[in-house]
Amino acid sequence: MEKLKGACIIGQSGGPSAVINASVLGCVEAALRSDAITKVYGAAHGITGVLDDRLYDLTLEDPEELAKLRYTPSAAFGSCRYKLADPLSDDADYQRLLDVFKKYDVRYFFYNGGNDSMDTCSKISAFLAQNDYVCRVIGIPKTIDNDLAMTDHCPGYGSAAKYVALSCMEVTLDSKVYGKGSVTVLEVMGRNAGWLTAAAALATDRGCGPDLIYLPEVHFDLADFISDVRRVHERKKDVMVAVSEGIKDKNGDYLSAYFSDASKTRDAFGHAQMGGLAASLASFANTRMDVKVRGIEFSLLQRCAAHTASATDIEEAYGAGKAAFEAAESGISDKMVAFEREPGAEYKCKTVLVDLVEVANAEKKIPRSWINEAGNGLLQPFIDYVSPLIQGETQLAMQEGLPQFANLKRIMTREV
Amino acid sequence: MEKLKGACIIGQSGGPSAVINASVLGCVEAALRSDAITKVYGAAHGITGVLDDRLYDLTLEDPEELAKLRYTPSAAFGSCRYKLADPLSDDADYQRLLDVFKKYDVRYFFYNGGNDSMDTCSKISAFLAQNDYVCRVIGIPKTIDNDLAMTDHCPGYGSAAKYVALSCMEVTLDSKVYGKGSVTVLEVMGRNAGWLTAAAALATDRGCGPDLIYLPEVHFDLADFISDVRRVHERKKDVMVAVSEGIKDKNGDYLSAYFSDASKTRDAFGHAQMGGLAASLASFANTRMDVKVRGIEFSLLQRCAAHTASATDIEEAYGAGKAAFEAAESGISDKMVAFEREPGAEYKCKTVLVDLVEVANAEKKIPRSWINEAGNGLLQPFIDYVSPLIQGETQLAMQEGLPQFANLKRIMTREV
Repeated sequence: MEKLKGACIIGQSGGPSAVINASVLGCVEAALRSDAITKVYGAAHGITGVLDDRLYDLTLEDPEELAKLRYTPSAAFGSCRYKLADPLSDDADYQRLLDVFKKYDVRYFFYNGGNDSMDTCSKISAFLAQNDYVCRVIGIPKTIDNDLAMTDHCPGYGSAAKYVALSCMEVTLDSKVYGKGSVTVLEVMGRNAGWLTAAAALATDRGCGPDLIYLPEVHFDLADFISDVRRVHERKKDVMVAVSEGIKDKNGDYLSAYFSDASKTRDAFGHAQMGGLAASLASFANTRMDVKVRGIEFSLLQRCAAHTASATDIEEAYGAGKAAFEAAESGISDKMVAFEREPGAEYKCKTVLVDLVEVANAEKKIPRSWINEAGNGLLQPFIDYVSPLIQGETQLAMQEGLPQFANLKRIMTREV
Repeated sequence: MEKLKGACIIGQSGGPSAVINASVLGCVEAALRSDAITKVYGAAHGITGVLDDRLYDLTLEDPEELAKLRYTPSAAFGSCRYKLADPLSDDADYQRLLDVFKKYDVRYFFYNGGNDSMDTCSKISAFLAQNDYVCRVIGIPKTIDNDLAMTDHCPGYGSAAKYVALSCMEVTLDSKVYGKGSVTVLEVMGRNAGWLTAAAALATDRGCGPDLIYLPEVHFDLADFISDVRRVHERKKDVMVAVSEGIKDKNGDYLSAYFSDASKTRDAFGHAQMGGLAASLASFANTRMDVKVRGIEFSLLQRCAAHTASATDIEEAYGAGKAAFEAAESGISDKMVAFEREPGAEYKCKTVLVDLVEVANAEKKIPRSWINEAGNGLLQPFIDYVSPLIQGETQLAMQEGLPQFANLKRIMTREV
């Protein structure tokens, strides 16, 4: 089969991760090697960069500097949270996109992101086909939330999970030094799925982690929480709790919304208890128990901590980008690269291709059977699932004590 | 000279660090090797463990497990924040301490901590001498705050500084991905001295760090802050700010106290703006500018992140503990081990001994001449000072993707 010749664009979307640039690199390096590809472009801030005709010419980058993307966190070309309209009601964006694709003779489009990005991919792919414009569209998964359907796990998750587990171990050691009793609440990202918060169980599994772990998959009850914390406090004084930012009560309302309603929680002086969920839950525990409390949010650190990225995650992320290009080059379109774990005790994972639409409209949660009955801890099947994903250390080069991250030229195709 | 035979106690005090256990190890390994030492004890929770006769017998620990203390964060024997009374008004604690020292024939006492711990050391040393009890007392410095007088720097600071610089680099990359403008405020520990916050300048020096850095050494003014942030925002959209938790206004009042007075800062809906200083400053910026804001506290992570400890700091911390023992063994008492930086371009540092009382009553701040005129950034002399302290990576052993921290037996000398 004759190869489809033309330019390729790769874009990044949604929240960044420690390894989303590794996926980009896998795709870009394969594209630069391919004789089918005339030009390799990076879209500035994802799909918005395509719409605004803001493209970086990646053929002008130094390959050695580009290679550092493997170990550089965040989204090197910038990201966006832009939702394309339904093309049936408003196709202005799609027409604009088609114009830009034509202008640069773009025949390969790769988009690196989560559910919403796969939805974007799917819509673009359909529109281009309807307009008889030949272009191969492939999605590359990315999310620390690990909530994409049709894939065993997502690039980005392993590194964030490793950061959460590692930090839980360190904070657990720190929080108990005074031996006088304390409640420390750690808040982890994840609005609807608890995969990342659950990674705290890896620290517990090493004897040095949270005593209680609460996930969005199980209804959260404040009375149960206090009773859980009291029980642990009586047994071992210092209580370590990990909560997902997305925990909800039995009505499906976010706990964070409960606490931001200032009328409900006031301290002894009538001051409203505010701040993040971790601080709010810690303050709440403090109103019920005479014990020192502290709330800690891992915040952006959990998704950008490239210095402690999982080598497995880095290589899989790179492999996903590479597989995306190879699929497109071989004539495939309208798919997302996914991971399939091979059966057996030894961890082996291969890339497969799944339909974009199937990913776009689904969200994967932790099976209830992997969570303990009380809903405050994880069971062995989860540990077995997550352990292989955090293996190995990054080869990030250090220069005089600090990381050497990629410093790209980012040369636009036109003056802007 | 005949060696003074007897037991030794080592205790840890104040906030833990990534390398306080390395100092303990340096002292303990030297003590275990010495023929002068009959027993080596660790005080559970510092001086309170001595008062309560709660001592760990370290001769019962496996030397290989003990050696892991070099890379294990937090205080392995527990810590305390206990202030001894003035012995002239109340010597009950001192009498109790003397009883315990006599019971175990303690002739060497090592205390690992900050200013307050050196004050404790100094008082104990004076009391023992007045009571003709021969015991050598040596302080080992420790503080991520780096505010001890009479020493070039303190063990613990280099690792915390490295964590702050590294995290600033990663968060800076993350925070600008959307390119739509943002203000991110990072809160760093340090109530009175800005050494640790200033380490954020290392990230700026690498082209990937805070635009504005505010320290307790310079009065903080909210109007100047907003004007600084506006100026940076106009130039580069995304603004990264690092603040010390201890910044104060021109009256010497903590900003954090200002924000916790809920009447002063309300959002558009009349809700009080609360939370940590980072969140408060971010919210405040949000009331003045139409821009996305975020506050991030490094919280405990900055003092316990052993996984990214500075190799220089680890070795110096170990060396300080070893030097403390060697000084005591050679007949010296009533001193603290300090670091003296040798002149010249190449970094060389040696241990010296300084009087405990001189350390106990002083606090070292950043020279004003190392801070820029506007009081919102650091100058080259600070970079030159701090750079050598963050060099080198930890040799912390990893086991299946997570750290292998020391797991001691902690066997008490008596049943408690």
